[in-house]
Amino acid sequence: MSNRAQRLIDCCRTLAAFTEEPGRTTRTFLSPPMVDVHRHLGSLMSSIGMHVTVDAVGNLRGVRMGEGPRLIIGSHLDTVPNAGAFDGVLGVVIGIALAETASRHSIEVIGFSEEEGVRLGVPFIGSRALVGTLDAATLALAEPYIRQFGLNPENIAEAHFAPETAAYLEFHIEQGPVLESLHLPLGVVDAIAGQSRLEVTFEGQANHAGTTPMPLRRDALVAAAQWIVRVEQLALAHDLLVATTGRVQIEPNATNVVPGRVTVSLDVRHRCDENRQAAVRQLIAAASKIASRRGVKMHHQQPLDQPAVPMNVGLREHLATAVKSAGYPVHYMSSGAGHDAMIVAPHIPSAMLFLRSPGGISHSPDEDVLGEDVEAAITVGERFLCLTS
Amino acid sequence: MSNRAQRLIDCCRTLAAFTEEPGRTTRTFLSPPMVDVHRHLGSLMSSIGMHVTVDAVGNLRGVRMGEGPRLIIGSHLDTVPNAGAFDGVLGVVIGIALAETASRHSIEVIGFSEEEGVRLGVPFIGSRALVGTLDAATLALAEPYIRQFGLNPENIAEAHFAPETAAYLEFHIEQGPVLESLHLPLGVVDAIAGQSRLEVTFEGQANHAGTTPMPLRRDALVAAAQWIVRVEQLALAHDLLVATTGRVQIEPNATNVVPGRVTVSLDVRHRCDENRQAAVRQLIAAASKIASRRGVKMHHQQPLDQPAVPMNVGLREHLATAVKSAGYPVHYMSSGAGHDAMIVAPHIPSAMLFLRSPGGISHSPDEDVLGEDVEAAITVGERFLCLTS
Repeated sequence: MSNRAQRLIDCCRTLAAFTEEPGRTTRTFLSPPMVDVHRHLGSLMSSIGMHVTVDAVGNLRGVRMGEGPRLIIGSHLDTVPNAGAFDGVLGVVIGIALAETASRHSIEVIGFSEEEGVRLGVPFIGSRALVGTLDAATLALAEPYIRQFGLNPENIAEAHFAPETAAYLEFHIEQGPVLESLHLPLGVVDAIAGQSRLEVTFEGQANHAGTTPMPLRRDALVAAAQWIVRVEQLALAHDLLVATTGRVQIEPNATNVVPGRVTVSLDVRHRCDENRQAAVRQLIAAASKIASRRGVKMHHQQPLDQPAVPMNVGLREHLATAVKSAGYPVHYMSSGAGHDAMIVAPHIPSAMLFLRSPGGISHSPDEDVLGEDVEAAITVGERFLCLTS
Repeated sequence: MSNRAQRLIDCCRTLAAFTEEPGRTTRTFLSPPMVDVHRHLGSLMSSIGMHVTVDAVGNLRGVRMGEGPRLIIGSHLDTVPNAGAFDGVLGVVIGIALAETASRHSIEVIGFSEEEGVRLGVPFIGSRALVGTLDAATLALAEPYIRQFGLNPENIAEAHFAPETAAYLEFHIEQGPVLESLHLPLGVVDAIAGQSRLEVTFEGQANHAGTTPMPLRRDALVAAAQWIVRVEQLALAHDLLVATTGRVQIEPNATNVVPGRVTVSLDVRHRCDENRQAAVRQLIAAASKIASRRGVKMHHQQPLDQPAVPMNVGLREHLATAVKSAGYPVHYMSSGAGHDAMIVAPHIPSAMLFLRSPGGISHSPDEDVLGEDVEAAITVGERFLCLTS
């Protein structure tokens, strides 16, 4: 591993020790350990000649103007509970390393204060403030935390990106197993997948588990189980689609009662909105058919229907060229997870590069990154800067 | 409806108002409203010449000796939370009505203090004290409640049934839909079904719902769901078997995470222990096969393997004869639920008669009983007394 890559990984592990919970990494929006993270990264930024500020929602921002239009390199500094050391933070640390190397370019490095949505239940507060789409209700919700951190929410307009900004670049660990399974260090993100979230409820009849013969039951759980199996079958049959039944609520959920009511969450993602929506329609039709065959009622809600967000085609091709010229195979992939780039892309031409996640593990203390992949990402970043400036 | 049946139903509804929770019927082991129940039923017993006592575990006992050996007619006076008016209580009220009618017989009516297991998490305290099988640990657990009720647990031996007791008879609502589906008022119980309880755990790999392609998942919930469907299929294929997956625990149970670990409860009941145990073996084998096909681990625990309890063959035939001579069709059935008769039967020759449950509903305020079925049960009880004395 290069010294540089090792230094960046060490830096991420140092930052992971700044936590709300001793012994594990948990750092939510503007929590006390974020002060230490700002101090640590701010001094790194200052040491390479960047002008360092913290904006009204707590985004750490280092700017050093040089040749060409401004490129923002950003990712987030908050974490999920019991997090790993690299989700978000690595992208900021790589940004600072690139600013150090590419000293003639105009670069702004941003460490977003909030992406995970843990503290307030609302994600992307940092990047939404950057692009001017943070709604008043969320800002009001965040205000006490902002003031306690010593910031003034009335200065929210100053968090907006500078007009001379030409592009946004985000480095992030993949948080999935695809690159590892392909033995590739890097992936060029072409889109953030769209997402549907549904709650599908099966209503049967709760009954005594001992006194109700099988043919006289209307078991909501068996109906739901049949559908859960069908969801997997349908998703496996559609290329690049993922469909997950992650949460199940059962009433009464007692060992000796036939379940009367079961609600199953459905999360469907695909890079193509039409494919995703067609899959959702198919899955709802399947649920309805299963329920009616069993004399069970079915109804559903859809709290989320979020379109896919494409990355900028020109920047994506620059990134691919950079990957290729650095000697790595180019692999385009969509991101199944949301990222700050998804919020930024409609407002600033954006590109995103994934780094392989060993074991596909993320949101876990076992999250890791390979030194050689970090070195590859920096090299690609340098070449990307040359191509875009 | 006969005046007598109406009077008994009214009595049950009056007793349902003696509750720990205003507006709904909840009366656990030796809770304050049990005092009112004892006063009400005790005065009914006294008025027909019975000697009334409350034994050391709070069983209400009315004895009136006459011709022939003593017959105990019993059921329980405690309820589940938010109960109906007839589960348990009806059997005691019918017992008193029979004692009134059959004035020449030696009859003991017992209202058991505890059958449901709600207050202490241990069921059948009343009937276990009657037959001398209440363990010391449970008695110690119950002691504070017993003393607070003004009773002395040291007198536990006096709760034992009298040596001249020849038989035990229990009337109980079916708590299931079988008699209603057959348009029958009464069922002669031939056995209390044996019961297996298991906890089956599927361990896969928790993963991000957006970033983990379908073919790379090891989803514990889809494995569990496939098995839940299989449990139903197998149970439907075995005559009189019931198998229920009533409770599911999922980790992490989040909409955006592929489930990593799922534990499903399995409750299997059958009147024949061999059939039940063979079904359990088949179901475990099915779980193991499903899991291994999916690269998921499976393990299980079996906290309960309770044999079936047959009713006394001679008494069962007397009951059937009584049913037939009263002009009703004889329908033998096993009880899928546990009852005090299950505890008593190994110690005193026992018989049990089910009354149709409208809608199959029990453990609910909607629990009901038909006046004509109550009248039928009393008539059958009278004929049974003549046959056995």
